[in-house]
Amino acid sequence: MEQELPIIQIRNCLLVSIQTELHDRLALDLQASLMERVRNVNARGVILDVSAVEVIDSYITRILNDIGKSVRFMGAECFIVGIRPAVAMTLIEMGVELDSVNTALNLDLALERLELLQ
Amino acid sequence: MEQELPIIQIRNCLLVSIQTELHDRLALDLQASLMERVRNVNARGVILDVSAVEVIDSYITRILNDIGKSVRFMGAECFIVGIRPAVAMTLIEMGVELDSVNTALNLDLALERLELLQ
Repeated sequence: MEQELPIIQIRNCLLVSIQTELHDRLALDLQASLMERVRNVNARGVILDVSAVEVIDSYITRILNDIGKSVRFMGAECFIVGIRPAVAMTLIEMGVELDSVNTALNLDLALERLELLQ
Repeated sequence: MEQELPIIQIRNCLLVSIQTELHDRLALDLQASLMERVRNVNARGVILDVSAVEVIDSYITRILNDIGKSVRFMGAECFIVGIRPAVAMTLIEMGVELDSVNTALNLDLALERLELLQ
């Protein structure tokens, strides 16, 4: 069976909780299906929760940035939440940037910034 | 790789979006890991989103009811959201009940009833 990451819709925001290691195919599929859903539901925000992800390499970072850019081009905001300390340090060591996305410590804080949580 | 359903935490509520056919092993694993998480995070509510599920048989219904009961025993509320019309009709034809859980039309409504959404 083809593995796919579930996209959850809360009001007009989309949420993907990545609880598996992100390999290249999976990340590209996610990008494609997210863009499609953003358009279909007129999404205002997209949140990618990576708190369970222990390894993010430079290729995956590029895809995350690409997702952020495309989401912004389509008029919505993109948040990456829950980057682990070790992942953050690796990103710095690799010299990669996450400049096309917003970041938040956790899901609740991103939902608050999108004004969804009470 | 062992397939597992991602459990998402929003404040003190747990959310599982079931976007794959629920087979027996998966449902039992879900029950076990949900109970563990309910305890760990002092969950107030558990939401199972089955809007993508096209077939729910009587065994799965029993597990869903069991999850609902155990969640209630632990002091939280359980919602099943997004039961499709065809699934609802099949459940009636089979004479099964979903009496241990609350139901809601969609995720937003369940989140509102748990007083999470603004």
